[in-house]
Amino acid sequence: MSEWVLPTTEEIMKIRIITAVLLAVGVSIARAAPDGPIQPIQPVKEVNLAKADLGKQLFLDGRLSRSGVLSCATCHNLAQAGVDNLQYSVGDRWKLDAINTPTVYNSSLNFVQFWDGRAPDLKAQAGGPIANPVEMGGFTHVIVTNFLKTIPGYVTEFNAVYGTKDITFDEVTGAIAEFEKTLKTPNGRFDRWLRGDPNAIDARELAGYRLFKAIGCSACHNGEGVGGKSFEKLGVFAPYKTSNPEEGRYEVTKKDDDRMRFKVPMLRNVALTYPYFHDGAARTLHDAVETMGRIQLGQQLAPEENDEIVAFLETLTGEFPSIALPQLPAGSDATPLSQPFAGTPEANHFQ
Amino acid sequence: MSEWVLPTTEEIMKIRIITAVLLAVGVSIARAAPDGPIQPIQPVKEVNLAKADLGKQLFLDGRLSRSGVLSCATCHNLAQAGVDNLQYSVGDRWKLDAINTPTVYNSSLNFVQFWDGRAPDLKAQAGGPIANPVEMGGFTHVIVTNFLKTIPGYVTEFNAVYGTKDITFDEVTGAIAEFEKTLKTPNGRFDRWLRGDPNAIDARELAGYRLFKAIGCSACHNGEGVGGKSFEKLGVFAPYKTSNPEEGRYEVTKKDDDRMRFKVPMLRNVALTYPYFHDGAARTLHDAVETMGRIQLGQQLAPEENDEIVAFLETLTGEFPSIALPQLPAGSDATPLSQPFAGTPEANHFQ
Repeated sequence: MSEWVLPTTEEIMKIRIITAVLLAVGVSIARAAPDGPIQPIQPVKEVNLAKADLGKQLFLDGRLSRSGVLSCATCHNLAQAGVDNLQYSVGDRWKLDAINTPTVYNSSLNFVQFWDGRAPDLKAQAGGPIANPVEMGGFTHVIVTNFLKTIPGYVTEFNAVYGTKDITFDEVTGAIAEFEKTLKTPNGRFDRWLRGDPNAIDARELAGYRLFKAIGCSACHNGEGVGGKSFEKLGVFAPYKTSNPEEGRYEVTKKDDDRMRFKVPMLRNVALTYPYFHDGAARTLHDAVETMGRIQLGQQLAPEENDEIVAFLETLTGEFPSIALPQLPAGSDATPLSQPFAGTPEANHFQ
Repeated sequence: MSEWVLPTTEEIMKIRIITAVLLAVGVSIARAAPDGPIQPIQPVKEVNLAKADLGKQLFLDGRLSRSGVLSCATCHNLAQAGVDNLQYSVGDRWKLDAINTPTVYNSSLNFVQFWDGRAPDLKAQAGGPIANPVEMGGFTHVIVTNFLKTIPGYVTEFNAVYGTKDITFDEVTGAIAEFEKTLKTPNGRFDRWLRGDPNAIDARELAGYRLFKAIGCSACHNGEGVGGKSFEKLGVFAPYKTSNPEEGRYEVTKKDDDRMRFKVPMLRNVALTYPYFHDGAARTLHDAVETMGRIQLGQQLAPEENDEIVAFLETLTGEFPSIALPQLPAGSDATPLSQPFAGTPEANHFQ
């Protein structure tokens, strides 16, 4: 039977060294992991490049719309931080699309899509605007796929990507979603700060970040997207005044409790995606911060506090991916010409 | 006084050799020079890169339009061979723009701009659609430049390119024109054939080219652009029937002789830029070739002749420049939000 023996001084030293090393490793791990509410945007992983390239073409192709001119990119302008910087977007036949267009950049980080979350993912979202009479004009899935089948370049590409001779709408939206997965904007100044570069943001911006956490913004605006992870009631401490009739999540669930619950928007690149809120009523970031503080958090922010938070939000602008414009596959003689003026007074222009 | 002396046999041989060499050099020069009616597209030369880059942003920026959504690229879609593949383009408030949109690619090769030649160059052309109420909505030059001055990124870029603190409309159109100079599509199959690659086009395409010359198409469609060098009467052997009221060059000169004289369009990339003619009435290249042969040249082409010419025209598709999408400079808090619905029934949507 072994007996208990007191450790030698040498052994005690060894234990102390091992403990110190373990502690140091532990601290180092804690430092490397983002311990705040926001995590850096992870680089794009596992993209099917041919599928994403096909999706890029479809995303930019106005011929998927009734008129032939409105593409996904018309409202989700890839050259304008993924938005159109309008209160409400212009739809088919110049209709007003009565909800503010969210950005497509980093949209893969949203837990669900649309302000009311009615689409579970990007693929389901992509079909919405195409079929919406107010947005791209209401082409049915069959019209879209029959159209694409007349374009030899698309037939070849769908075949190469999906290995089938047919073109299905499921393949169309799948390719668009694959492209959208590539639209991430990593390496913004705040992310560089999160990763350990103390000079990536300045003292005022850091003060803004601390205030952002202290007053509770980060309770909803957190994670990789700085939002996009929950539905929240708009107007907690005071009602949100708007002429816009949208009621958010209620439109999907029809539960009274979901009235005015909207998906919390991500704040990535928020300095570029004005105007703000589902009704696009806040023109500037200062307006938006003031309203959010007051009605969501019960905080009347001093002007310099507002300025600090805005300064922090501006550090959330990331690096946009380089996107080369494709040449879209040309139609064949069998491709019908789009008829933007059908159903408008202009249709009889020269009759 | 010197006397005439007959040359020796040796001298005669020398003369013969020299003559042969001179002839060979002469033939070689003739072969190297394009001896047909069409010349290969020359590569882009002497571009001010910073100015062209600024111009690219302005070309793509819908905020130069009244609505905030229609840019030069809406109708001159850089991803669609520089056109929108519509009979008539969609303008501000969904107005019908009653003349077919010509491509912006290779437009620097046009001797004048617009179908009626009312602009002497690209710079003069660029100002037209911005100020046109039917097209981009009729922003005055002052509105455009005042708008741009609220955008810090543009102020910096204009300053870097032009060295002045102000932004003038002249600078705006100058930058757009500089960008458009870069939009050339060299190295198409026909150009490679012109440069000496006998396999760049096949026997049927070559037969089409010969027919194109033989029946007289190349009398007007020639040079680097395969057109774009003269005004010609539409309807020489038979009148051109159209419901479109445009009368071409007459609109500029008001001379009776100029009625129905239009700038001869270039045929570069013509397979991609359907539909055809100033009224966009010809859906396919076959339609266009049939009509041109009949009313311009008095030729009733057999179907196989039409096919051959179309096959040749398809070899005029060139290599499009690689264009990286820019991120347009974001507005400041002072930048007014575009109001696409002002002046439309939608303006009162939520009032």
